[in-house]
Amino acid sequence: MTQDRISAQLAFLTEADRLKSIQRATTLCDASRRENSAEHSWHIALYALTLAEHAERPVNIGRVIQMILLHDIVEIDAGDAPIHGGPDPAIQAIKEQKAADRIFGILPADQRDHYRALWEEFEAAETDDAIFAKSIDRVQPLIANLETGGGSWIEYDVTAQQLETRVGVKVRRGAPKVWQALKQRIDTWFAENRG
Amino acid sequence: MTQDRISAQLAFLTEADRLKSIQRATTLCDASRRENSAEHSWHIALYALTLAEHAERPVNIGRVIQMILLHDIVEIDAGDAPIHGGPDPAIQAIKEQKAADRIFGILPADQRDHYRALWEEFEAAETDDAIFAKSIDRVQPLIANLETGGGSWIEYDVTAQQLETRVGVKVRRGAPKVWQALKQRIDTWFAENRG
Ligand SMILES: [Ca+2]
Repeated sequence: MTQDRISAQLAFLTEADRLKSIQRATTLCDASRRENSAEHSWHIALYALTLAEHAERPVNIGRVIQMILLHDIVEIDAGDAPIHGGPDPAIQAIKEQKAADRIFGILPADQRDHYRALWEEFEAAETDDAIFAKSIDRVQPLIANLETGGGSWIEYDVTAQQLETRVGVKVRRGAPKVWQALKQRIDTWFAENRG
Repeated sequence: MTQDRISAQLAFLTEADRLKSIQRATTLCDASRRENSAEHSWHIALYALTLAEHAERPVNIGRVIQMILLHDIVEIDAGDAPIHGGPDPAIQAIKEQKAADRIFGILPADQRDHYRALWEEFEAAETDDAIFAKSIDRVQPLIANLETGGGSWIEYDVTAQQLETRVGVKVRRGAPKVWQALKQRIDTWFAENRG
């Protein structure tokens, strides 16, 4: 019984290994290569832990980190949907639901339901924990773009207005002080490159 | 004041990006390339979350995951010390202490001390949380080796006795049921390849 349970859990964890091969639009801060979704998940978990004190509303950091560890696993089947230049959101959402069925379905039923609920909560972005997790998920690629002199903003010809709509609104909703700390660097970049 | 604090935190998080360029001895489960320490950290955090119920003694999974997120950051300066075929442990330990001074030292003092204490606790492997975290850190490369038909066991000519000393003892200490679930696959591999 326990051994069957562990076997199912290990099969899920082995499947999850494939997230290391899913490429994102963002590069590493040294621009040496594109980032993958597994290392991105580690990085934003560390971001959330380090910046939790600046959340707009109090969060349960343990739950936030669990959401973050799980949030990109559906990309194993559905691929990454870049913030700038991504596919039709409705089609992507259907792909992600099917991916969640398959991948979380490898787990024992109670754990499948628990992980699925955390992932749905993250996607819905309505609870304080999910709002903060989503804001942090937007901060990290922003910094990679600043560090590399523009990154995916150049590749996708992003305007200041698009950054505001796709990123600014979400970061300010969960972590306004973090946005404030970055605002000058962002404004300078857009003034110099999109002026 | 808050803005200075956030600047220090973001500087630490940007420095941490370099963990994505630290290569480990282990490959991905599809053997396509070597794993890096950032994606490894994500993966074992997910392992710990998924397998926490099998910990030999009760753990605080939130603390375990925090330790895991931080446990390899010193490798940015000190490099990865492979389980099999690694450098002199005493020399490596000195390098890692210096790395911890520099990298955690980028943070505000209270957070520097908090992260340093979590990392020291992981390294000491004396508390229940650290014992479980360490056992999980040994399980994941073991599975990568089983999935790739031997992996770093072949590269470093590892014997069944060395696996027992370097890996088996540690996994059983924190998660004996997980070891039991893997034992048959391990025994079969060593019987066929080191018989
Ligand atoms: Ca390590």
